[in-house]
Amino acid sequence: MVKQRTNPNMREKQASSEKEVNEMEAMEASNLSEKEFRVMVIRWMKKMEDQFNNMCRNQEEMKKNQEEMKRNQEEMKNDITAIKNSIESINSRLEEAEDRISELEDKVEKNTQTEQLLEKKIKKQEESLRELWNNAKRNNILIIGVPEGEETEQGIENLFEKIVTENFPDIGRKKLTQIQEAHRVPNKMNPKRPTPRHIIIKLANTNDKARILKAARERQKVTYKGSPIRLATDFSTETHQARREWNEIYKVMQRKGLNPRILYPARLSIKIEGQIRSFTDKNGLREFITTKPAMQEMLQGLL
Amino acid sequence: MVKQRTNPNMREKQASSEKEVNEMEAMEASNLSEKEFRVMVIRWMKKMEDQFNNMCRNQEEMKKNQEEMKRNQEEMKNDITAIKNSIESINSRLEEAEDRISELEDKVEKNTQTEQLLEKKIKKQEESLRELWNNAKRNNILIIGVPEGEETEQGIENLFEKIVTENFPDIGRKKLTQIQEAHRVPNKMNPKRPTPRHIIIKLANTNDKARILKAARERQKVTYKGSPIRLATDFSTETHQARREWNEIYKVMQRKGLNPRILYPARLSIKIEGQIRSFTDKNGLREFITTKPAMQEMLQGLL
Amino acid sequence: MVKQRTNPNMREKQASSEKEVNEMEAMEASNLSEKEFRVMVIRWMKKMEDQFNNMCRNQEEMKKNQEEMKRNQEEMKNDITAIKNSIESINSRLEEAEDRISELEDKVEKNTQTEQLLEKKIKKQEESLRELWNNAKRNNILIIGVPEGEETEQGIENLFEKIVTENFPDIGRKKLTQIQEAHRVPNKMNPKRPTPRHIIIKLANTNDKARILKAARERQKVTYKGSPIRLATDFSTETHQARREWNEIYKVMQRKGLNPRILYPARLSIKIEGQIRSFTDKNGLREFITTKPAMQEMLQGLL
Repeated sequence: MVKQRTNPNMREKQASSEKEVNEMEAMEASNLSEKEFRVMVIRWMKKMEDQFNNMCRNQEEMKKNQEEMKRNQEEMKNDITAIKNSIESINSRLEEAEDRISELEDKVEKNTQTEQLLEKKIKKQEESLRELWNNAKRNNILIIGVPEGEETEQGIENLFEKIVTENFPDIGRKKLTQIQEAHRVPNKMNPKRPTPRHIIIKLANTNDKARILKAARERQKVTYKGSPIRLATDFSTETHQARREWNEIYKVMQRKGLNPRILYPARLSIKIEGQIRSFTDKNGLREFITTKPAMQEMLQGLL
Repeated sequence: MVKQRTNPNMREKQASSEKEVNEMEAMEASNLSEKEFRVMVIRWMKKMEDQFNNMCRNQEEMKKNQEEMKRNQEEMKNDITAIKNSIESINSRLEEAEDRISELEDKVEKNTQTEQLLEKKIKKQEESLRELWNNAKRNNILIIGVPEGEETEQGIENLFEKIVTENFPDIGRKKLTQIQEAHRVPNKMNPKRPTPRHIIIKLANTNDKARILKAARERQKVTYKGSPIRLATDFSTETHQARREWNEIYKVMQRKGLNPRILYPARLSIKIEGQIRSFTDKNGLREFITTKPAMQEMLQGLL
Repeated sequence: MVKQRTNPNMREKQASSEKEVNEMEAMEASNLSEKEFRVMVIRWMKKMEDQFNNMCRNQEEMKKNQEEMKRNQEEMKNDITAIKNSIESINSRLEEAEDRISELEDKVEKNTQTEQLLEKKIKKQEESLRELWNNAKRNNILIIGVPEGEETEQGIENLFEKIVTENFPDIGRKKLTQIQEAHRVPNKMNPKRPTPRHIIIKLANTNDKARILKAARERQKVTYKGSPIRLATDFSTETHQARREWNEIYKVMQRKGLNPRILYPARLSIKIEGQIRSFTDKNGLREFITTKPAMQEMLQGLL
């Protein structure tokens, strides 16, 4: 951009000196005296020298400025070269970083997929383990409520036979069920625990176990030496836990006449609106009752 | 770079004015009249003033240019300072990013290794589970083809005893094999399924099971009430699946007289070129036959 | 920055010409002859023209410099614009990279947590599997040291009964323990192995197994046809391995009278300073003895 503004002082000087020259020509024409001419010329020369010197100083000043600016420019040029190098190096570092990120993204994606695969396998194994445990406990009868020490003299096997004779005389008469294992769980007594440990009886035959438990359910009240005890199915820890989760809901439903049942391994089954529905976990039940306000109220705080 | 080109106009002016001065000196020497001298001096002065004014304007113009360039330079200097700051900040961000990437690479590498470890453990557990299932089913006999309902009145245990008496009178006579479990699988009948469910008999003694299955293999034809049924070993689901994988190949090989056998848990064994070879999966067999064109043709489309 | 240094040559010229003008005025006052005046004026004019031309060349030179600097400045301006664009693009790439890194960090953190969860589950499953195996082997008795082939004619079951009769006549008399399984492990003989394979006997009843092993421990020396053999509990592979880990330490402790015992599944128990302490692995023991220099010395090289 070139500025159109002119320096007023310089313009003035110029203008006045032009005027003088014209006057001088006029004077020369009108026969200036020798002395007057000389004075006029010498004054002009002095003035011109002043102006020239002034311009000289200006030029000198500008030259210095120019030199300084040139040095600045050199410096800046070097700066720019250095900056370009920096940018080039940054670009290549950035490219490398982006490559590493892409590689990481691939690896993380692969890891995530592997994890999901492993998770699925573990889930499947969990189920397999639960089934194996339930299978291992398939012939077990859990006896709950027999006071500690009752087995000390007679042994647990005889204790169990007494329970069978006391409660299910028909089964006991027909055939003395063969016992494979009989022990308290856990192995060691915890003196702080107020209730006696459970007794586990493992029978050789699955049908024998089923017959005894069926008879116990039908009899409703089972006793040992006249005191009430409970016979139950033995499950894997996970299945036990999963069944316990339904406890409160089961009680409420039974009170309300919904006839709930816990199916193997841990499904809650109810008869509702003429249909039998079963749920593997609370989520399923929660979803089901979203359209049943009456049940929502009944189960409030339990899901 | 300094340009060597000169302004032709200025050079000309300069040259002409030098010439004039020389002429003037010559004129002075040849006794110019007073009037002529005055005219010459005044003209020179006018011309000099013109040239001076011209130069003045040039200088003014250059000064403006210089000032503008100085402003530009200041601006650019500020730009460069800002750029340097940007680059510094970029460099430190980039460094931080690179550190984070390195840390991520370490973590991802660690995760990948952990995954491989977990994968190995899961593989080992899978095998352990398969073994446990096979162990749990070790004493089982699978009975295939007995019509549904046959067990309703007599019970499965008596049904099995009938099969033993009908087919293996020697075993039945010697000792009534003790049965631990007897049931159909799956538990519930699927009315859409055209074939009867399998029956599983769990014997108390492994040798009894082995004896019965050996007798069944030797007899080749086993019947229930005269109709053909099949007695088979019971395996874990995975082992069953793995053995089924060989079905088609087994049939082709048997037809071709290769005497194939399925070994526990699911290996295919054949006698080839006088040597017994066994394969845990199709990959192994595929690799083996790469050098056996005859077998490749035989198994085309089956591997 | 404006430099205060002045060009000495130019200052000199200026000074001398000022002096001349003053002299001229003096001369004019002292009535210079016509000729002298003319010579003075013409010389001045020539000198002025020289100086003017000189300045002209200077200006021309500066102008060229200025033009070159302007071109440089334009170039640099373009460079700076390009640099700014580069920086803008770098900044946005960097931002994107940082976003991707953050996302990766989240994913890797999630993966790591999932892995830890899976690791825990696998650990739990490992324990569950170990328990299942130990449970499956709960009724097993391991017989170590019976020469290969001894079972060929009589069968392993009769061989076991002979061992019971030979060593534990009381148990044998009371009741012939029911055997569910009896076989050598591994299934196939390895002809390179110098010792006979172990025999595994699976009894139907856990108490029978416990009674026999207890009797064997009390008798200390068990024989088959007069030659010493060993009866032992059968554990899962992992439990066997974990118990074997204590072998050397157990021997040293027994020699030193520390009465060590290996508890189920693989804990080392010792009585030290009147208290019974048990350790699930070597790490636990190593930590425990950091404050017991005597034990450190005893177990040097074993932990």
